[in-house]
Amino acid sequence: VIAAEEGCEVILVGDETRLKMELADLGSDLPIVHAPEEIGMGDDPAKALREKPNSSISVCARLVRDGEADAFVSAGSTGAVMAAAAIVIGRLPGVWRPAIAAVLPTPGSATLLLDAGANLEVKPKHLVQFALMGSVMAEIHLGIKNPRVGLLNNGEEPSKGRKTEQEAFPLLQKASVNFVGNVEGRDLATAKADVMVTDGFTGNVVIKTAEGAVQMAAALAMEELAVLQPTVLAQVMDALEGFRRRLDYEQIGGAHLLGVKGVVVIAHGASSRVAIANAVKMAGGMADAGLVAKVAERIAES
Amino acid sequence: VIAAEEGCEVILVGDETRLKMELADLGSDLPIVHAPEEIGMGDDPAKALREKPNSSISVCARLVRDGEADAFVSAGSTGAVMAAAAIVIGRLPGVWRPAIAAVLPTPGSATLLLDAGANLEVKPKHLVQFALMGSVMAEIHLGIKNPRVGLLNNGEEPSKGRKTEQEAFPLLQKASVNFVGNVEGRDLATAKADVMVTDGFTGNVVIKTAEGAVQMAAALAMEELAVLQPTVLAQVMDALEGFRRRLDYEQIGGAHLLGVKGVVVIAHGASSRVAIANAVKMAGGMADAGLVAKVAERIAES
Repeated sequence: VIAAEEGCEVILVGDETRLKMELADLGSDLPIVHAPEEIGMGDDPAKALREKPNSSISVCARLVRDGEADAFVSAGSTGAVMAAAAIVIGRLPGVWRPAIAAVLPTPGSATLLLDAGANLEVKPKHLVQFALMGSVMAEIHLGIKNPRVGLLNNGEEPSKGRKTEQEAFPLLQKASVNFVGNVEGRDLATAKADVMVTDGFTGNVVIKTAEGAVQMAAALAMEELAVLQPTVLAQVMDALEGFRRRLDYEQIGGAHLLGVKGVVVIAHGASSRVAIANAVKMAGGMADAGLVAKVAERIAES
Repeated sequence: VIAAEEGCEVILVGDETRLKMELADLGSDLPIVHAPEEIGMGDDPAKALREKPNSSISVCARLVRDGEADAFVSAGSTGAVMAAAAIVIGRLPGVWRPAIAAVLPTPGSATLLLDAGANLEVKPKHLVQFALMGSVMAEIHLGIKNPRVGLLNNGEEPSKGRKTEQEAFPLLQKASVNFVGNVEGRDLATAKADVMVTDGFTGNVVIKTAEGAVQMAAALAMEELAVLQPTVLAQVMDALEGFRRRLDYEQIGGAHLLGVKGVVVIAHGASSRVAIANAVKMAGGMADAGLVAKVAERIAES
């Protein structure tokens, strides 16, 4: 509803009775598509998709496939969203592995990290496609030409890393991306790259570690700030309101699944209204900017 | 010198002329062992050890092997320290892969993370040994009995992870450690485990990501705090002094290489005097507590 008020055309997909009641409470009359089945977080994704053709994830995927929606946003099972995107919507020609691109805040801007969890293990050539797809999204989302791409590694030297990273390095040098070499986790602070590529296991761990480290630092800082006078502390908290907003994963929107024939956004499982609204707005923006066509073109050229 | 003043018996190893001059400046007469050769950060570790038998790293390793020192601390090339530890000092019986244990601050305590970079790729059984060795160090360093061990993974469910994590899970359940299941990067904030095990690539990325995320958050916070009046800001900075100390990697000491026949500590390459002193003190404490014998015992029992 928040997103719709800000100009997005939203279709709600889910249990019609429940959604109608909730919309009535909010005084809204957004269109609803009925989807009586539900895929649980614990369900096997592929099996759940087969057995529950009327789950909201399946219905959303069909709306996108049939051109009735430009994008779909779900805070449901990541596995089921990926499976629905691959099976119902389909991969773009030439894409080996769709990848999840997450947006990580950096001082003054943001870094796109992919893969954030779609492919736990990857080949060097997959990392090159992640770099191509991530560059397209960075151009649109960060508004920069020729975004810098870094390979996440355990050191800066080209010889660093596992066999995968060692082999990916020269491939990335030859690829038509602005490859700036190896980057490390600490480059989240230096913003050395606009796009960081890695396998989905490492990417997932990086995002959760960054989240955990920031929370941990905030908790430690609060313990120390408790010595301040209440009036001073209140001023500090006011000043930090913007800081919290900038680091808040809710504000950032969702992670985009790149490499499929539609805009597919995976929102955080514990998303609030604001988070979902931001994910919907970001998805709408990506659809308007022609994300899918541009990714298809970049992959076709490579 | 700081460490020596606080009761450590320190032997300095390095270029005698240079060290003598520096000690004279400090008015100290610590014993020196001459080591005229130097291994650079870019040198191939194994080759450098063979070609430079009188580098400080080689000499230190021989002092430990020959019982003339209980521990050695180096801020030099991690690869060369590991190679010297493996070749000169030797692995403990039954240890497949020595691993680096790093100390990460958590609210109220700390978590040991291993492997922090010695073995970029590991087998499930290696992770079990990391859990055993890490538990011994946690008992000594954190002073807790039966430390909780977590497997770093991309989700909490036992089925999560790559093949390595999936196979390690049941092995850890059967091992004589207090296995609490899968943990995620965000558990740095929840302190769900005292010991986290993972491969050395992921471990290295996690440490650097945590460092980068905290720096990034601090930079963002400072931008927002700039709106405060100078006197208020000064109070905040005073209050955060302790916070900085707690998160400061310099204060924590060095990462310990576990599984070799001696206490071997790898200090951060960019270590200050304080950092080195803390690493030396921690190494001394570990030697006094019988770290090596206790690790040997735990591995022999397993």
